[in-house]
Amino acid sequence: MQIVCFGEIMLRLSPPGAQRMVQARQFEAVYGGSEANVAVSLAQFGIKTAYLTRVPDNELGQAALAAVAQHGVATHLALKGGDRLGIYFLEQGAGRRASKVRYDRAGSGMATLTPGVIDWRAALEQATWLHWSGITPALSQGAADALLEGLTIAKELNIPISCDINYRANLWNYGKKPAEIMPALLAFTDVLLGDETAFEVCLGIKNEIDTAPEVVLSAVKTAFPKLSHISMTRREGFSASHNSYQGLIFDGQRLFTSKKYDLPDMLDRIGSGDAFMAGLIFGLQKADADLQEVIEFATAAAAYKHYISGDFNLCTESEVRALMEGNLGGRVNR
Amino acid sequence: MQIVCFGEIMLRLSPPGAQRMVQARQFEAVYGGSEANVAVSLAQFGIKTAYLTRVPDNELGQAALAAVAQHGVATHLALKGGDRLGIYFLEQGAGRRASKVRYDRAGSGMATLTPGVIDWRAALEQATWLHWSGITPALSQGAADALLEGLTIAKELNIPISCDINYRANLWNYGKKPAEIMPALLAFTDVLLGDETAFEVCLGIKNEIDTAPEVVLSAVKTAFPKLSHISMTRREGFSASHNSYQGLIFDGQRLFTSKKYDLPDMLDRIGSGDAFMAGLIFGLQKADADLQEVIEFATAAAAYKHYISGDFNLCTESEVRALMEGNLGGRVNR
Amino acid sequence: MQIVCFGEIMLRLSPPGAQRMVQARQFEAVYGGSEANVAVSLAQFGIKTAYLTRVPDNELGQAALAAVAQHGVATHLALKGGDRLGIYFLEQGAGRRASKVRYDRAGSGMATLTPGVIDWRAALEQATWLHWSGITPALSQGAADALLEGLTIAKELNIPISCDINYRANLWNYGKKPAEIMPALLAFTDVLLGDETAFEVCLGIKNEIDTAPEVVLSAVKTAFPKLSHISMTRREGFSASHNSYQGLIFDGQRLFTSKKYDLPDMLDRIGSGDAFMAGLIFGLQKADADLQEVIEFATAAAAYKHYISGDFNLCTESEVRALMEGNLGGRVNR
Amino acid sequence: MQIVCFGEIMLRLSPPGAQRMVQARQFEAVYGGSEANVAVSLAQFGIKTAYLTRVPDNELGQAALAAVAQHGVATHLALKGGDRLGIYFLEQGAGRRASKVRYDRAGSGMATLTPGVIDWRAALEQATWLHWSGITPALSQGAADALLEGLTIAKELNIPISCDINYRANLWNYGKKPAEIMPALLAFTDVLLGDETAFEVCLGIKNEIDTAPEVVLSAVKTAFPKLSHISMTRREGFSASHNSYQGLIFDGQRLFTSKKYDLPDMLDRIGSGDAFMAGLIFGLQKADADLQEVIEFATAAAAYKHYISGDFNLCTESEVRALMEGNLGGRVNR
Amino acid sequence: MQIVCFGEIMLRLSPPGAQRMVQARQFEAVYGGSEANVAVSLAQFGIKTAYLTRVPDNELGQAALAAVAQHGVATHLALKGGDRLGIYFLEQGAGRRASKVRYDRAGSGMATLTPGVIDWRAALEQATWLHWSGITPALSQGAADALLEGLTIAKELNIPISCDINYRANLWNYGKKPAEIMPALLAFTDVLLGDETAFEVCLGIKNEIDTAPEVVLSAVKTAFPKLSHISMTRREGFSASHNSYQGLIFDGQRLFTSKKYDLPDMLDRIGSGDAFMAGLIFGLQKADADLQEVIEFATAAAAYKHYISGDFNLCTESEVRALMEGNLGGRVNR
Amino acid sequence: MQIVCFGEIMLRLSPPGAQRMVQARQFEAVYGGSEANVAVSLAQFGIKTAYLTRVPDNELGQAALAAVAQHGVATHLALKGGDRLGIYFLEQGAGRRASKVRYDRAGSGMATLTPGVIDWRAALEQATWLHWSGITPALSQGAADALLEGLTIAKELNIPISCDINYRANLWNYGKKPAEIMPALLAFTDVLLGDETAFEVCLGIKNEIDTAPEVVLSAVKTAFPKLSHISMTRREGFSASHNSYQGLIFDGQRLFTSKKYDLPDMLDRIGSGDAFMAGLIFGLQKADADLQEVIEFATAAAAYKHYISGDFNLCTESEVRALMEGNLGGRVNR
Repeated sequence: MQIVCFGEIMLRLSPPGAQRMVQARQFEAVYGGSEANVAVSLAQFGIKTAYLTRVPDNELGQAALAAVAQHGVATHLALKGGDRLGIYFLEQGAGRRASKVRYDRAGSGMATLTPGVIDWRAALEQATWLHWSGITPALSQGAADALLEGLTIAKELNIPISCDINYRANLWNYGKKPAEIMPALLAFTDVLLGDETAFEVCLGIKNEIDTAPEVVLSAVKTAFPKLSHISMTRREGFSASHNSYQGLIFDGQRLFTSKKYDLPDMLDRIGSGDAFMAGLIFGLQKADADLQEVIEFATAAAAYKHYISGDFNLCTESEVRALMEGNLGGRVNR
Repeated sequence: MQIVCFGEIMLRLSPPGAQRMVQARQFEAVYGGSEANVAVSLAQFGIKTAYLTRVPDNELGQAALAAVAQHGVATHLALKGGDRLGIYFLEQGAGRRASKVRYDRAGSGMATLTPGVIDWRAALEQATWLHWSGITPALSQGAADALLEGLTIAKELNIPISCDINYRANLWNYGKKPAEIMPALLAFTDVLLGDETAFEVCLGIKNEIDTAPEVVLSAVKTAFPKLSHISMTRREGFSASHNSYQGLIFDGQRLFTSKKYDLPDMLDRIGSGDAFMAGLIFGLQKADADLQEVIEFATAAAAYKHYISGDFNLCTESEVRALMEGNLGGRVNR
Repeated sequence: MQIVCFGEIMLRLSPPGAQRMVQARQFEAVYGGSEANVAVSLAQFGIKTAYLTRVPDNELGQAALAAVAQHGVATHLALKGGDRLGIYFLEQGAGRRASKVRYDRAGSGMATLTPGVIDWRAALEQATWLHWSGITPALSQGAADALLEGLTIAKELNIPISCDINYRANLWNYGKKPAEIMPALLAFTDVLLGDETAFEVCLGIKNEIDTAPEVVLSAVKTAFPKLSHISMTRREGFSASHNSYQGLIFDGQRLFTSKKYDLPDMLDRIGSGDAFMAGLIFGLQKADADLQEVIEFATAAAAYKHYISGDFNLCTESEVRALMEGNLGGRVNR
Repeated sequence: MQIVCFGEIMLRLSPPGAQRMVQARQFEAVYGGSEANVAVSLAQFGIKTAYLTRVPDNELGQAALAAVAQHGVATHLALKGGDRLGIYFLEQGAGRRASKVRYDRAGSGMATLTPGVIDWRAALEQATWLHWSGITPALSQGAADALLEGLTIAKELNIPISCDINYRANLWNYGKKPAEIMPALLAFTDVLLGDETAFEVCLGIKNEIDTAPEVVLSAVKTAFPKLSHISMTRREGFSASHNSYQGLIFDGQRLFTSKKYDLPDMLDRIGSGDAFMAGLIFGLQKADADLQEVIEFATAAAAYKHYISGDFNLCTESEVRALMEGNLGGRVNR
Repeated sequence: MQIVCFGEIMLRLSPPGAQRMVQARQFEAVYGGSEANVAVSLAQFGIKTAYLTRVPDNELGQAALAAVAQHGVATHLALKGGDRLGIYFLEQGAGRRASKVRYDRAGSGMATLTPGVIDWRAALEQATWLHWSGITPALSQGAADALLEGLTIAKELNIPISCDINYRANLWNYGKKPAEIMPALLAFTDVLLGDETAFEVCLGIKNEIDTAPEVVLSAVKTAFPKLSHISMTRREGFSASHNSYQGLIFDGQRLFTSKKYDLPDMLDRIGSGDAFMAGLIFGLQKADADLQEVIEFATAAAAYKHYISGDFNLCTESEVRALMEGNLGGRVNR
Repeated sequence: MQIVCFGEIMLRLSPPGAQRMVQARQFEAVYGGSEANVAVSLAQFGIKTAYLTRVPDNELGQAALAAVAQHGVATHLALKGGDRLGIYFLEQGAGRRASKVRYDRAGSGMATLTPGVIDWRAALEQATWLHWSGITPALSQGAADALLEGLTIAKELNIPISCDINYRANLWNYGKKPAEIMPALLAFTDVLLGDETAFEVCLGIKNEIDTAPEVVLSAVKTAFPKLSHISMTRREGFSASHNSYQGLIFDGQRLFTSKKYDLPDMLDRIGSGDAFMAGLIFGLQKADADLQEVIEFATAAAAYKHYISGDFNLCTESEVRALMEGNLGGRVNR
């Protein structure tokens, strides 16, 4: 059994403390990317996971894979190629100053990927699940085509497929709109994570601010009947350091809603959506998943992520369960 | 067009993290001073600014000017002189432990300044505004006299003058009381920032705790009729990390009050008054300033400062406007 | 006059910032231990204090004593012995992620202590107070026996004795239960700090969750009639960064309860119980102590500790008094 | 009087200490580029200098200009444009492990420059010297064309022009060979810095390993008769931390050779060629330059650079002169 | 094909820079151990390697394995067990101050290992080589016995066995002398690395200071006829920062001697013997190894290690070959 | 028995690594001063030492004393007074770039000392030796007078007195020349450390470059017949990182010369003269000191200091002896 996560990994550079970019004389360096984050999180939960990506054949490509490998994810599927590793700069916010992300990922190994480069049958040989996100088709036509190629083969092999739409307005610069690309990809997909904006921009499913989630989710289900589960998250942003977070999952008929977590004194919210996605896959890949438990676990996993530096949700299943069960962090664990 | 800010710049040394002085094995080093802070903030708002000061002819003097120059402030007016650069030690507080400032600025270039040293006509040649603060006359009789010399010439040249009273009880050690020095200097001034304590100690305008601000401000206006605008700020201190902040401006007739900002998870409040002052000058130097907008901008600028490390308010006009318009920091700016 | 504190000091290693153990490429290193923390805190309050311990004859033993000596505690009583200095790893929590302590202290100088090693009469020659904690008898039979030896001599010398029960379930690994060891030691003790769990596990005094503190404390007093004062603290843990704290003291007849402190944005709660204990001793060692003032001071001292990095409560009596009097940290102390 | 330096500035990222890339959890961040380095060095020697470049309109572009401005170089000529700031990764070597540079500069503001973007007449209005390097034409055809445009106008304005060939084999990726581009540019140039390899690859002037420098330099002079001075440097590399360095200058007739510096315990050799170039311009822009002194100064400046971290040669004229005069660093300067 | 390395991994803590232990307020943390170092080095050379060890089931055990896994070594064979991870403190020397190592490894997972705990047949199932060192039998009788158990099975399976004697006088504290334990273990071994002292203490083979290496090595060969290759290294220590290094290998008949490397400005010599051992295995596991090339490669690998921080020799085969071929570090690799 | 060292302690601030002042964003902070350095060094050699100084009654004064106390020096004699703690900025050199010291010590507790402030009889009550240096009389007339007061009383009490002339040209700014002040102070002194320049400037004893040391030292002895021992050191400065060092001692009749140490890869030479002085006192305070051994020990102690960061020579007697006996640092001390 092995979950294969496919996508781009980047070097993340952020000024130490809460410095602004112009103040930085050092940058903290970690590696992350939506699908790598999912893979690492699943590995912490004890799931066998492999990461499929394409990184340049240089020290940074090696370092990116090492970052994933150290947390127990298999990296033998990764390809070498492309001229550079994508980078993203993160200025961590504080209080009334919002965090800021600036991508510098053009020309990366994933952005210059084309069909035929990946041997998908080999890559999926031991796969029991395939996860992708809407980042990959946003990078380039070639990346979108390579993904389509993979999804086609995964379907042939009857491998369940999950997707986090992960809509980023400032990607999608290669001349195509999300709605021209995403529906064909989502047609292969079984489990979907998104939000109202993403559903509208990527799937063309309009909704009003006050539309009930059931209505939106039913419309998605109708449009993409292969989807077995559709999930959403709700975040309130009181400040850069204080949010709330809640998850929902819809099985085509019923909507399950998690506890809502108050998240004061946040440390690093980047990757919390990926932590949620990993929690979702962790729950759904079990036979007879109890959807209320699934959504509680995924939401608690995402909540926990806000208190771990870097993109990866370095916490165990038992730590997530302790939070689910009401251990809100106030006791020293001796 | 050029705003000239005149005052002392110091090396600021603070233990990293929230260490106490006795724990420090390193000190974080930045440079700052009330009027330099105003100059840098104005430069971030796109205003041409020059900084007039006197620093020793050594590496620290050079480093202090470099710190200002890097943020776009002209430093060609700065003089070399004095034996040392002033220093201030800052122990950042946290929660129930208050921040602590300890000055070590005796003998600095500004403290040993005397009339005749600055060529004020040359310094103000291109000036369209002159800003000073109550720190300078608190340093020494010579500094006070040199300032008076400058204000006299600025008045001759019809340059608008602003002042932040900035009363610090533990300066004023050279034998004069503020009330013996400040009134003569304020007589030249058009725009004033202060608070009730400063008005009482420096201007001799008494008031009770529950006196309405209009009453106090009217008294100041009566005493100093050249003042076109008088501004005050109100801060509540719930803890070292949590304050609220609000600004007021009075045009001699009407009082304009800003929104009140809740400031949780503060990073560095030092220089927030200077950020306010810069916002004020930024607003008032425009023709036909809308005073409600002026006070909202100045207050939002000050609020933003609490989330930037160091003395300087390194934020842009658009970032301040986003806060004014209700973006309280809760969304990642991608 | 000299207060002698007897116990183990360890090297404390914690990942910088709020990193997890697996992320750490550096560890912050401080030294601390319950009784050393009490000694340092008392020295900050101006009390003459000596620290009695046993550390290995190597660089780490030397560094541990240096850490205590720098804060004004006499270390000439300390013995050299044992193969290693105990270590504890601390992963500082944040928000919803709890802090984690992992001990690595087997084989230390204190754990391998046996009766006859310490010359107690010499050590207590100038002592006017002896402080110990329940950590020492939890380490090994030898340590418990050596402590008993010391308490016996202290009693002979009529030296007042205080104890912080400090029950840690994951110590006590040498085959004895606390209830087999602690009562004999507490029989020598005059001032006791504990909590309901500790009273039950160590003293066998059962209580229900809703038992009033007076009832519990009276039972303790009855069981250990030599106790002149028994104290407890109450903490609520809203998150890893936000707690509340309150202290109680019982003189056998009356219960005195302190103000309850709200503790947002906590920096480091480790050692806050020791800060409380130091505050208690500071108050009680004065003749005619006012118990309400004693408990207010001890509680404020503990509250202050949450805002100081490391185990030691590096604050002065006047800083504690300022907090007692309502200075909640919101003003910069210039 | 103003020397204009034209070229690309990059963010330089290097692991702290002598870590390898894969070990890095932080990167030290400075900004540098051949021509910016020349500009900063000249400013330290008291020369008025302006830096002409094109950086993206984002925080990194702003930070790059701030880095130059803080050291006294005028940046008002800099243009905003391009999608990203170029980056170079530097792994500092040590002893038997060589330093490693990896460029990531495709798509930068300078690489995407085209003729017509820079208003050269305005940029050169106050220029008394123009400096460029062979990096710019190596980036793209557009950058080469824009440079040619500028050199043409500089010639019209009779501005002396200097060039550091700075041949980098791993640039020049846009389909042209250096020898197709460089000669036309060098035809405008008065002062040239190069080496045998560069002369061969860029100018087509062949030479053998044991050809005397006079012979090579005469051939260059013959091919480019506008050149008034041609300079070379010689480096021996005993280890990553120990080199020797020597400079030569040829005025068309005579060859002047500097002292040879032994450079043990080197700190950062990047930018030493630029430090040499700045020393050369500093010497040659004076009327009646004594070429022996010119080459001694330039070589000492370059030697000094090996002991300053970052790309910029942050030393004064008097510090260079002290080294020229034999102060080899062994005395503490109190 | 897979090389299995068996031994203990520790947390290595060293003060930053060249601080002494008593000065340290942080410790740099890496993980290392003789056999883990060999495994990581082999993985950098492209060899499939697995690491067999026993670490506690806690965060430090996890972190130690993560450190090895990130560099491409398989860790699935590692067992969980024991109460703590061994630690070693390293004070890096400089110039005339020698480096200092202090072990704190009692009670570790490896020290408390006993026969029967490791399923050796499973562990060696895919092994084509087994490497051990003299550290393991020095830890405890149980560790020595468990090793003997493994060697016996490896012999049955016809797996070649290598050993680095790695004699450390301050281990071997459990009551046995090396000469009572090591000969039985070496009887299984094919490739041996040692030095004169180790041969005398562990094997009882006496020699004089001026005995020729051939004589000593022949005596070892005679005593342990299964040995196919015996290797030694020679180091001269001019200072803590400057050594020389040379390797020798003996095939029972001929002695091959490598170039001697001068090693100025050393960064970190810990693990250089393990780097040598890895180079030796790398060479000898190839069919038809040229022993002169083998010893040159192993020695160059060890030389390179002196310039890499941490225990692991993070360099590639081509980097080692470049050094072998005379690239002594003096050129920047662009 | 107790050696009392009297003098000023300062905060020393230096940029990390080998940054220049203008590059520093942090300063490393240690505390040091000539006589404090002597006291700490003696304490490491096991000598009971007390430090007599005057520091301001603030956090920095407290931190300075804590720095001394942690290394085992008694600080109960220290007085509180003066407005500030003196500071010195140190820019560590490297290779061809010399180290740079800039004092900022005007107005310190010691500089504002006057006679009558110190209760010398109490301070010297347990003293068996008094050490002072030429720094103190260089600070101010008051400091010189207070010192004279102390020396007078020490002489009355028959306490041996040592002095390190420590001539610093850029002190002595209060209007007196060294030769007007120093002779009267040296008349009380028994053991003197100096050099030719100091003897000329402070004592008026002229000498030529090639005068033999015996001649100079005899002249000093003649002028100051109370001197029992006069010592000198010789340093050659090959670069900022490489010096040689040698010591001499003269007993009025014979000159003893130590080995000469080659000091490559120096870490921190500040305080090496004080380390020498401490070695001298350590040797001479023993009855029947063998002067050859005394000078060897003092010189080796000074040599060792070059490899310890900060002002203090944190090494033990046995470490110094190992260097004396030829352990030049090349072996790891396991």
